[in-house]
Amino acid sequence: MDEQVRKQKSVIGLHILGEVYTKEISTLNNFSSVRDTIVESVAKAGLSQVGTAEHVFPEGGFTFVILLAESHLSIHTWPELGYLNMDVFVCNVSKDNSVAARNLFDSVAELFRPYEVVKREVIR
Amino acid sequence: MDEQVRKQKSVIGLHILGEVYTKEISTLNNFSSVRDTIVESVAKAGLSQVGTAEHVFPEGGFTFVILLAESHLSIHTWPELGYLNMDVFVCNVSKDNSVAARNLFDSVAELFRPYEVVKREVIR
Repeated sequence: MDEQVRKQKSVIGLHILGEVYTKEISTLNNFSSVRDTIVESVAKAGLSQVGTAEHVFPEGGFTFVILLAESHLSIHTWPELGYLNMDVFVCNVSKDNSVAARNLFDSVAELFRPYEVVKREVIR
Repeated sequence: MDEQVRKQKSVIGLHILGEVYTKEISTLNNFSSVRDTIVESVAKAGLSQVGTAEHVFPEGGFTFVILLAESHLSIHTWPELGYLNMDVFVCNVSKDNSVAARNLFDSVAELFRPYEVVKREVIR
């Protein structure tokens, strides 16, 4: 599909897919210590929360999703691997939220004190 | 990062990013008509729901996320564009959930009676 057609048929949004590696394993287990800060980061980035869902796994790790008016943020942590993945997906209909999405991604990733962050950006 | 290192450092999962186009606009507005069927599709695919979040926009369209023990499914609909995007993301730690993810994607996409579906698969 060429770009011209795609623009007519779809929302142009930015989806950041991130892999985050940390040696601070406690940050991957302790959901309550990061939950409120993540929520605050969404507001600071100028994005609009419209819902949340969360699950803490008995064997360790957690999943957290924030629904945004602009799409969503998701986090899945794997303490046994020193790893989490994070997605920030924003549509850019009423305004370009790309900078807000990148700022949100970086500020939340920083909470886990990573030694490596691998990001992919998908336009969709 | 070469594949050998990646395997040691990360979960290998499958993330399907889908763009779905339909002329059946009512399916993109009427969340209550598809919600339960989507939830049933998760169970039929053999995946495990651990939470949900949803938001119906006053101006039309909805967002629905199902947290899975294996990661998540997300849907954002845009009635004014005859478009929705859907992500099915599964990790493959205890077993390979790739077939289940593809089946889930296809069965949920079908609910919207699409005339075109564009899928990208990201290994992460």
